[in-house]
Amino acid sequence: MKIKLFIILSLMTTLAMAQKTLTLEDVMSGGSNWYNLQPENKYTAWWGNVPLETTADEVKNLVTGKTLVTVGQLNEIAGEKVVRSGHTVRFPYGGQPIAQVQTANKRIQLDWKKGNVVWSQAVPEGAEWQDFNTTSRHLAFTRQGNLFVLTADGQELQVSKDGSTDGSNDIVYGQSVHRDEFGITKGTFWSPDGQRLAFYRMDQSMVAGYPQVDISQRIAGVTMDHYPMAGETSHQVRVGIFDVKSRKTTWLELIGAPDDYHTNLSWAPDGKLLYVFELNRDQNDMQLVAYDTETGKLEKQLLQECHDKYVEPLHGLEFLPWNTSKAIMQSRRDGWNHLYLLDVATGETEQLTAGEYEVQQFVGFNKKQKCAIYLSNAEDPRTSCLFSLNLEKPRCTMLGSPEGVHSASLSEDGTMLIDRYSSPTVPRSINLIATQSVRSRRPNLVTNILTAKDPWQEQGYKIPEITSGSIKAADGVTDLYYRMVKPIDFDPQKKYPTVVYVYGGPHAHNVDARWHWCLRGWEAYMATKGYLLFILDNRGSEWRGREFEQATFRQLGDIEMQDQMEGVKFLKSLPYVDAERMGVHGWSFGGFMTTNLMCSYPDVFKVGVAGGPVIDWKYYEVMYGERYMDTPQTNPEGYERCSLLGKAKNLRGRLQIIFGYNDPTCVPQHTLSFLRACEDAGTQPDLFTYPGDGHNMFGRDQVHLHERITRYFDDYLAR
Amino acid sequence: MKIKLFIILSLMTTLAMAQKTLTLEDVMSGGSNWYNLQPENKYTAWWGNVPLETTADEVKNLVTGKTLVTVGQLNEIAGEKVVRSGHTVRFPYGGQPIAQVQTANKRIQLDWKKGNVVWSQAVPEGAEWQDFNTTSRHLAFTRQGNLFVLTADGQELQVSKDGSTDGSNDIVYGQSVHRDEFGITKGTFWSPDGQRLAFYRMDQSMVAGYPQVDISQRIAGVTMDHYPMAGETSHQVRVGIFDVKSRKTTWLELIGAPDDYHTNLSWAPDGKLLYVFELNRDQNDMQLVAYDTETGKLEKQLLQECHDKYVEPLHGLEFLPWNTSKAIMQSRRDGWNHLYLLDVATGETEQLTAGEYEVQQFVGFNKKQKCAIYLSNAEDPRTSCLFSLNLEKPRCTMLGSPEGVHSASLSEDGTMLIDRYSSPTVPRSINLIATQSVRSRRPNLVTNILTAKDPWQEQGYKIPEITSGSIKAADGVTDLYYRMVKPIDFDPQKKYPTVVYVYGGPHAHNVDARWHWCLRGWEAYMATKGYLLFILDNRGSEWRGREFEQATFRQLGDIEMQDQMEGVKFLKSLPYVDAERMGVHGWSFGGFMTTNLMCSYPDVFKVGVAGGPVIDWKYYEVMYGERYMDTPQTNPEGYERCSLLGKAKNLRGRLQIIFGYNDPTCVPQHTLSFLRACEDAGTQPDLFTYPGDGHNMFGRDQVHLHERITRYFDDYLAR
Repeated sequence: MKIKLFIILSLMTTLAMAQKTLTLEDVMSGGSNWYNLQPENKYTAWWGNVPLETTADEVKNLVTGKTLVTVGQLNEIAGEKVVRSGHTVRFPYGGQPIAQVQTANKRIQLDWKKGNVVWSQAVPEGAEWQDFNTTSRHLAFTRQGNLFVLTADGQELQVSKDGSTDGSNDIVYGQSVHRDEFGITKGTFWSPDGQRLAFYRMDQSMVAGYPQVDISQRIAGVTMDHYPMAGETSHQVRVGIFDVKSRKTTWLELIGAPDDYHTNLSWAPDGKLLYVFELNRDQNDMQLVAYDTETGKLEKQLLQECHDKYVEPLHGLEFLPWNTSKAIMQSRRDGWNHLYLLDVATGETEQLTAGEYEVQQFVGFNKKQKCAIYLSNAEDPRTSCLFSLNLEKPRCTMLGSPEGVHSASLSEDGTMLIDRYSSPTVPRSINLIATQSVRSRRPNLVTNILTAKDPWQEQGYKIPEITSGSIKAADGVTDLYYRMVKPIDFDPQKKYPTVVYVYGGPHAHNVDARWHWCLRGWEAYMATKGYLLFILDNRGSEWRGREFEQATFRQLGDIEMQDQMEGVKFLKSLPYVDAERMGVHGWSFGGFMTTNLMCSYPDVFKVGVAGGPVIDWKYYEVMYGERYMDTPQTNPEGYERCSLLGKAKNLRGRLQIIFGYNDPTCVPQHTLSFLRACEDAGTQPDLFTYPGDGHNMFGRDQVHLHERITRYFDDYLAR
Repeated sequence: MKIKLFIILSLMTTLAMAQKTLTLEDVMSGGSNWYNLQPENKYTAWWGNVPLETTADEVKNLVTGKTLVTVGQLNEIAGEKVVRSGHTVRFPYGGQPIAQVQTANKRIQLDWKKGNVVWSQAVPEGAEWQDFNTTSRHLAFTRQGNLFVLTADGQELQVSKDGSTDGSNDIVYGQSVHRDEFGITKGTFWSPDGQRLAFYRMDQSMVAGYPQVDISQRIAGVTMDHYPMAGETSHQVRVGIFDVKSRKTTWLELIGAPDDYHTNLSWAPDGKLLYVFELNRDQNDMQLVAYDTETGKLEKQLLQECHDKYVEPLHGLEFLPWNTSKAIMQSRRDGWNHLYLLDVATGETEQLTAGEYEVQQFVGFNKKQKCAIYLSNAEDPRTSCLFSLNLEKPRCTMLGSPEGVHSASLSEDGTMLIDRYSSPTVPRSINLIATQSVRSRRPNLVTNILTAKDPWQEQGYKIPEITSGSIKAADGVTDLYYRMVKPIDFDPQKKYPTVVYVYGGPHAHNVDARWHWCLRGWEAYMATKGYLLFILDNRGSEWRGREFEQATFRQLGDIEMQDQMEGVKFLKSLPYVDAERMGVHGWSFGGFMTTNLMCSYPDVFKVGVAGGPVIDWKYYEVMYGERYMDTPQTNPEGYERCSLLGKAKNLRGRLQIIFGYNDPTCVPQHTLSFLRACEDAGTQPDLFTYPGDGHNMFGRDQVHLHERITRYFDDYLAR
């Protein structure tokens, strides 16, 4: 793949008719006018292989427009108002005219042809996480640390042992574990037939509690949140399999150490085996292991991946629907994330995709033509496009537009998909596409459902010029992509205050080929106030391969800042950038970068706003922290050098740190320790906090926050 | 007493030679040059009736200058270096050549004439509070909630029962109770002969815990601080008497409710009775009660004081040395705090002092001439002068200067005292004075020990002009006193940004006749930066009588702000005050006032800095809070109206709130609740905090804090 150098795409210029100025109420998702400025949309769903469009009042065929069923009809069948909008209706059984609805109190299935209630069940009181299996209609749910199954016929079975510590804050069942790292998002996994439930049990009684103070009570209260900090004692996870019929739990006899990671649980199609990706705490030795689901015993160790830095299993197995002896797995073993075909009997693998790009998502199978559908950035590192790979013939076809960032939803048989994408100039496009892999390079577009116009332009707002391009990283070789937002009414003869927005950490990027180059609303707002914005994805960020990401290993912040300073060098080369008025802003890892840049380059950055920053990686959690930094015990000099506590004394510009007072991710100890270090060193950061909020602010707090951030730059950078 | 209207005393004018500009390092007690700018001092002590001066190397007669003993001699006698400076030596036995020294590890008494160690004892390990009785040489001390006596001969006796809850954070022995209100400062009280120990036992197990988070640990920890909030369940106090000889404890059979207040414990001279001032939780009904110390039973209820608003017993009984059937007590029953002679047999009282002024402190007795020595502001509400009242003849004499604010230390027989005072023009004056009450109005000065020169002037610093005067309160009648600090190089043709510094709460004042009118160092610093400072003691503040203080009852903030706005009206009448640049700053009650003024008068105050503010009195503690506000249950509309949560929406100017992250007095819930209210209302206060600090900042943090406060006014008020 050739990376095009220094592409600048001019997106939009101010129209003569555009008079309105964007406000925070327009551009923030918590703003009062945000919804009105979103690109036009259509809501879609699949009923087996029939594409549907849902509206507030009805559900209709996406292609023909013919009404399937109305909201009124469904409520009439239910005998009560269970459906408030067509968007909330699901169609779990292809070919059967059954609509499923879940309200706060009940789960109900309605036959809109026969006009009767097929099945209905009250939602268990106090249920938190709910995992409903449409095949068996059993529901797995959690309540206060315990795990239950509510059977289709209404029996509530407690899966977790009701001991003195089980099912407490100390030992939790059926919840996501390992702090949602390693691709883990949940803690219950139904077998294909819906009769057995694999689940996580996490013992965190040995993990220190971080005190989270709730000031909303009459007298402030405290919750001790088990938070394993890097190098400290971690939690211990087990995997159980509960058989609904026998009501017995089988525990897997997991290999490895008690604090190893057990990720991406995958049931064999016949339910006999459960595949688990097992990773050691050091995160440099990963094995794929199969367990017998009847006995819990080790069946086989299928394959192993090791790496000097780290291995990061993020995806489970996807068994071929037409040949269950093989499954698709993902691996970065050749330096880029690619698809492999795994023989689950032998552990042998065959590489399916290859090249200097990354497979970003496995979407599913076209079962008829035996194709694997996936998203990759093979076209351009900033894109995410759809591909169909025929697994029998060596043939790969791009599906849909070669531009922009796509997402897809497959029909039941996988022969069709609904593609949604935006590109720098297209706010939203929805298309129905056939997924067979063909010889021609052009995709086989079936129907364009919607191509939205620019709502900002249509409503007469002034839109800043947004461009993207690339510069060289500090290594002189690697291309880094940026987005630049020029002030409204840009005059190249003027010099503008410039704000670098930064994230910079792994598993995220800020520049891609979405609408407006994925401009954040606040940047547009800042442009209306006369700022130039610059956003650069440094080494360490996502979708650029293993070496690009792992350049930062054991020294988080160093390489990232070097690359950002190349961005600054580029900015300083532009005549309209005021090098005397450079600011920086970022959140989370970007808060770490912002604080770090302010303290490391006090001559360059005059003003910074750091949100929810990491200050010292020893206060961050085991899973993420140790992957990139190892432990404070094994990498003491790295932790020391990367800590901002020692840099607090260098602060000269204006730095405001903002954090959620109840941030459970990047705990307040980070910010507070930095304050203490500044106080001891005689430097003067500024501070703000949102009581009751976590790592991020939402709704009205988000508007308040960005008014605050903007005001800080207005106070100290603009003038 | 006639209050002089509108006195303005011009203190100092800039000298031609003064060139140096004061910095925060000069004026803050945590600053590096603060010590060098303190007025000259001498350290004094009494050895019976012999006045002493202590120096680093020796102890000498204050009058003759003759050396008593040197530090070297004492260490030689001890056989080790127990004395580091003459200042640490005490002389507990008048007439006996015995020096007492306490180090971290031992308590030792040395006879400097015989040259031997009279007595010595190791300080018990882990001892916290220590109360040593020089008569019996028994030591009472606390350790982790428990109370012990270490006898003179070295036996350690545990006074507190060692049960499962006794002597824990839930039940504490021998500590100050009722959160140091009602004049309580400690929890152990030796009988006159030092053989019996009265002590407090406080059960706070029923009091909700406020979570205090310690971020200095590897992983932040939490302590639950029993903090009884207004209207909530309070702690319960008992009083025990431990007999060292019998090793038995007698518990007083206290009258009243379990959460009543038991204050100002006073032993009868013969040890047979213990007098306790008993106050109901509503604080409007006080009784003086005597208990039999042998049986713990009620002996008699001597007198009762009630008031619609509140009664506040702050002082114990002072028995006449020459007639133990009578004692001096203090009461505000006639509207001003005065001395009364109590007949402890009948409870009858005779008023000793009277007038529209307040007795501020009872100093002691002249035992020979039968005089009571006390401090009052009879001369001027801003002064605190010494008086000697002959109790046998109706004769009262002022001792020492009629100006300034005095403090005194009496000789053993009370015939002499060492008087220390400062006045607006005198930085420090030390005098040895005879205390007999004589007919002449002039005091009988014996020796002027020291009159310090102005160290700022001597060292060539520019000093601002500091004046004091009075204006009328919002009631149009009451005089209120202010201090005004003019900017350095004051030019009456200019208009200056003006900052009102405010406290405004009870039991404190900001304007008195100390050196520089008790100018705070920060004000001098602000004057160097071109600000005018104004400080006014509103109604509700101290030493102005009951009616003046109680004007604010059940409505804290209202009257106080009305009076402060009279100050603003006065400021606006001055041509050199820039009414467009008015700021306000205060801490604690002053933080409450600052926040309140910013939200109540957004058109007047452009910038405010509020430290450790009360935001809603329901978050403040029972003892102080309910005295002035009653409870949220009995005064709901008062709590509602005085809460700043409802005023958060009015904030328009720039307000920075600063608090100690571990403030145990005005808990962080105040500030954090206000932030949340502002966030919900869409207003934008600023914030800062000092992790690890309590209600106030000390040392280097104090310098950091004032740099911060100053910067805020520089940022938003000066320009």
